[in-house]
Amino acid sequence: MLDYPSLAAVAAVVREGTFERAAAALGITPSAVSQRVRGLEERLGAILIVRGQPCEPTELGRTLCAHLDRVRLLEHDLAPALGRAAGPGERLTLPIAVNSDSLATWFPAAAAAFGRRVDASLDLALDDEAYTAARLRSGEVLAAVTAEREPVQGCRTLTLGALRYAACASPDFVARHFPRGVTAEALAAAPCLRFDRRDFLQARWAKAAFGIDLAGPVHWVPSTHGFLDMTLAGLGWGLHPCGMVQPHLAAGRLVDLGPEHRVEVPLYWTVTRLHAAPLRHLTDAVRIAARGVLVGGG
Amino acid sequence: MLDYPSLAAVAAVVREGTFERAAAALGITPSAVSQRVRGLEERLGAILIVRGQPCEPTELGRTLCAHLDRVRLLEHDLAPALGRAAGPGERLTLPIAVNSDSLATWFPAAAAAFGRRVDASLDLALDDEAYTAARLRSGEVLAAVTAEREPVQGCRTLTLGALRYAACASPDFVARHFPRGVTAEALAAAPCLRFDRRDFLQARWAKAAFGIDLAGPVHWVPSTHGFLDMTLAGLGWGLHPCGMVQPHLAAGRLVDLGPEHRVEVPLYWTVTRLHAAPLRHLTDAVRIAARGVLVGGG
Repeated sequence: MLDYPSLAAVAAVVREGTFERAAAALGITPSAVSQRVRGLEERLGAILIVRGQPCEPTELGRTLCAHLDRVRLLEHDLAPALGRAAGPGERLTLPIAVNSDSLATWFPAAAAAFGRRVDASLDLALDDEAYTAARLRSGEVLAAVTAEREPVQGCRTLTLGALRYAACASPDFVARHFPRGVTAEALAAAPCLRFDRRDFLQARWAKAAFGIDLAGPVHWVPSTHGFLDMTLAGLGWGLHPCGMVQPHLAAGRLVDLGPEHRVEVPLYWTVTRLHAAPLRHLTDAVRIAARGVLVGGG
Repeated sequence: MLDYPSLAAVAAVVREGTFERAAAALGITPSAVSQRVRGLEERLGAILIVRGQPCEPTELGRTLCAHLDRVRLLEHDLAPALGRAAGPGERLTLPIAVNSDSLATWFPAAAAAFGRRVDASLDLALDDEAYTAARLRSGEVLAAVTAEREPVQGCRTLTLGALRYAACASPDFVARHFPRGVTAEALAAAPCLRFDRRDFLQARWAKAAFGIDLAGPVHWVPSTHGFLDMTLAGLGWGLHPCGMVQPHLAAGRLVDLGPEHRVEVPLYWTVTRLHAAPLRHLTDAVRIAARGVLVGGG
């Protein structure tokens, strides 16, 4: 068997970034943390942590930390039977990847419902979709909300429903760029926002609504709320989750550029096949919260 | 001299991710793009682009693209003298790093003011402070808003003022965890939010306000607005920019856990020393927008 107290010390250093803070989290001295980490490294004949500011795991270190997360998850279900509480530093942490637009809309309700029911920490990573499948495979995250349906071995994928987007701009932007209404020509030339280079929502909408290709300036804003704030400030037009812009549209702070044209992006929950109550509760909370906001979900 | 039309093709492929979209952006055929890129690679005897989905620059490719950004920036100032407009694909793009809390508060006003004055695109990267200095040094970004004052060669650093933070929680969270008011003991054990492992705001506040170390569960939420939404949903307590929570405090959706205790984080603008009007206008817009929101700025 692996030496789990030592592995817990490795995981604490990775999570906290320094040996001192890991020691505080575990309720032991820094030299005890250092001894455990070094001891495990010597027995395995491999470095697990690159010492630095902050300390980073090696690839093997990361794999072992992911393994520890899973063992803790399975142990969590035993706790009532064993009648013992988790010691300090033994708190269950679920690493989860979430795409930006979900975190900005329906996911907080799921996280809060989970937090009220299960005594565990959530370690959220903003999903870079390009890496989600790899992160799930390596065990770096236990579940992910994604906008791309990628089958991952050892995981099941649930369809959550679709997030619906509206094309919006601020009234002053509309006055400057669409003085004669939103025409194909004006739209093609107007400054447009893009989240990142995988964001084709604006292009899809322009194609569907006006049959045109966009040729105007692009501003890149890789944050869902930043994207909205830039639209409100009049930097460009862009597509936003309907739920986020509804109050701004109602208050006249934003203008809907084409109420008859919406873009829908299906979302998925891909979760490790581990029979563990905390994961099941999280999946339940995700499904319930998604159902309230997404369209056409299960 | 470098072959700039070919370098522009390389930059377009890097920005757009594929040869096809780069061709559309440049208004030439994909095979012309491919020829230019290959030609430059052959003459330099080095690969500039790793072909893939998406295409990524090699280190040399990234360095050359950064160089092109600077040449375009200098050229932009010549345009009126030369009396010519930029061709397709020659639009000036300013790559800028911004820290998350600035993007969520005062930065959109700066970007919008800049966008109205200068015909250039902003390519915003969410600042990972650990990499900002390296990104500035390599020329990958031309300027950065950071929370760490790091002198960078070839750049000047302006103090913008401090962002002020308040410790908040939702009323239902307060009722569950602080039924007898916010005491040192209850605070030490209550679930707390952290942005990432470099986020010590909660720990600083708890130390200053109650002289305690936090020992309760931590949820990790690496998004400024996600952090606020999780607090509103009752997952944990945390520190927020005062400007963001003010309406929620006024409406009773959040409770201020210690109005007499604020944490202030100084912010800096580090910008490449290049005499180019667009950078100067951006610096002006940044200073004006920051002055309206940050405390103690210049």
